[in-house]
Amino acid sequence: MISYRVEPRHYLALVLAVIFLAVGQHGHSVERAAPDPLPSWQEGKAKSAILDFVQRATTDGNPDFVLPGERIAVFDMDGTLIPEKPLPGAVLPIIEDVRAAAGRNPALAAKPAVAALLAGDIKGVEAAGQQGMADIIAAAVDNRTTEEVAAGMANEERTAMHPVYHRPYLELAYRPMIEVLTLLRAHGFQIWICSGSPVAYVRGMSMEAFGVDPTHVIGSSLSTSFTERAGHTVLIYTGGVERLVDRDTKPPAINLAIGKRPVFVAGNVGGEGDIAMMRYSHDRPGASFQLLVNHDDAKREFSYTEKSGASLAAAARHGFAVASIARDWKVLYIQPDDPARRP
Amino acid sequence: MISYRVEPRHYLALVLAVIFLAVGQHGHSVERAAPDPLPSWQEGKAKSAILDFVQRATTDGNPDFVLPGERIAVFDMDGTLIPEKPLPGAVLPIIEDVRAAAGRNPALAAKPAVAALLAGDIKGVEAAGQQGMADIIAAAVDNRTTEEVAAGMANEERTAMHPVYHRPYLELAYRPMIEVLTLLRAHGFQIWICSGSPVAYVRGMSMEAFGVDPTHVIGSSLSTSFTERAGHTVLIYTGGVERLVDRDTKPPAINLAIGKRPVFVAGNVGGEGDIAMMRYSHDRPGASFQLLVNHDDAKREFSYTEKSGASLAAAARHGFAVASIARDWKVLYIQPDDPARRP
Repeated sequence: MISYRVEPRHYLALVLAVIFLAVGQHGHSVERAAPDPLPSWQEGKAKSAILDFVQRATTDGNPDFVLPGERIAVFDMDGTLIPEKPLPGAVLPIIEDVRAAAGRNPALAAKPAVAALLAGDIKGVEAAGQQGMADIIAAAVDNRTTEEVAAGMANEERTAMHPVYHRPYLELAYRPMIEVLTLLRAHGFQIWICSGSPVAYVRGMSMEAFGVDPTHVIGSSLSTSFTERAGHTVLIYTGGVERLVDRDTKPPAINLAIGKRPVFVAGNVGGEGDIAMMRYSHDRPGASFQLLVNHDDAKREFSYTEKSGASLAAAARHGFAVASIARDWKVLYIQPDDPARRP
Repeated sequence: MISYRVEPRHYLALVLAVIFLAVGQHGHSVERAAPDPLPSWQEGKAKSAILDFVQRATTDGNPDFVLPGERIAVFDMDGTLIPEKPLPGAVLPIIEDVRAAAGRNPALAAKPAVAALLAGDIKGVEAAGQQGMADIIAAAVDNRTTEEVAAGMANEERTAMHPVYHRPYLELAYRPMIEVLTLLRAHGFQIWICSGSPVAYVRGMSMEAFGVDPTHVIGSSLSTSFTERAGHTVLIYTGGVERLVDRDTKPPAINLAIGKRPVFVAGNVGGEGDIAMMRYSHDRPGASFQLLVNHDDAKREFSYTEKSGASLAAAARHGFAVASIARDWKVLYIQPDDPARRP
């Protein structure tokens, strides 16, 4: 027995859809001036390049047309969708968890990033990069179940404040990037995040902050062990990093999760972390687009460059689009009551 | 500029949908006798348990109701969706690839399963289990790009014949299990595969054989390295197994890919490979269902048991449903022109 039941409001919506489509049917298509899909972007090269690419990639008959099933977009998170300075989101609030875990399990404190954090040496933490951040989070969750950690993180991510903006990181999504996500989604792109941050952390905010399904999160993974507690099966974090996803390990992680080169990739200047996945996308057969966010706005955000200049050099060499925060973004952050907040 | 264009047949379908729903609306619901969704299953405990669970889990107001977003089903592949005897699908056809790779890279032949395969010792290959199979496939793909291997595998999987049935493994999907996939999908379940076979191999057949999206494949992963060939970025297989997914490593792999305990899990008696993920599902808060396929049909398939009896013992202890191939399945394999073939 299968029962069909339609809520009156769904029924109404369907009728309205048919009337709307019927009107369109008379002229075979309805053209209308759409509102600007990227209102937070200044007019300029970066904005034009994004709009132009999406138009070409989704127009049947265009030489750069991309079949709907191939429309895969991959975004870095820290520094690309939310700020990563003074430190990436997960690190500062968990220092007490790390201290407690290192008390129980002194081996954890042998990791350089963990030692730096416990000594209050923020520069040392920063210098340890993505590996260091993953080590710190692995230490913080040591000996807890995946479910305890997920519940705790979701709470921490809603309450721990960014030290400069005094809002949780998950409320600091860059509005211009949310607009890009929404534009791509409206054109049939699947959106994925590929982050150096541990999956368990990214997943705690991916839907609320970016509208990205937690199953579309690729990231560093922390070691877990399947065991029993009080006769109940659990996965326990064992304090180690199972797989680090950064730089040259981003393409293998993308291949494992998706099995295809992404058509659209966005990353940022900072730790050279996204060059590999941008090149991996760039070398796909057929059209592709790479967007590199440049943190050059000391006034509204943070200004930082790579000593090597590698990300900008790769952009120049391979033709990645560069978004200057100072010049290309009218506003930085989404607001709590922002209509663009839930894409 | 956004253009809306509706194909006449879509328009018609929408109008018909509205009329149909409007009719339903008058009586608030339309009840109709649906055709049996599991026609290849004999009437009996297993079939009733499956139908009953799906009904309970998807009926709003039932104490076992599962919210649509939580409806995650995970299936083992070898032995659960296709035969795994005399050997799992990927092993036999690639012996020449393995021989060539071991010629170039003698370290590969040090793996026990690889040595057994090259010596023609099928029992030795079988004894090496999932780890052995992953080692063999890793050797076979050594030094090739992920894209070369994906293309080659897709071809091999369409042409290499099962030694007993003389049809490709991907045409040997168990029809009763395809019916379960279709039933779950029709009730809003997301379908995932969690296999000990390498992801690259499972992905080559997941859509064609089972209608499962390649991004919903969890499996053992082979080591790759991001590098350049002729100025073009590639991922090259390096001959090793990065992560084995079997037994107690299935729940961590499911957690990494999905982040939730599955509501429905299907596995098989044979190598004790699925007990952990079935228990992991069983211990979720709320309703769940576990289906264990028992290979007890020497006449139509293969009859094999575990010396330990662990899978059947776990089923008895935790209340997993057991599908006896001999007693519960009217037919085994889907046919090439079978209407159930593409779920």
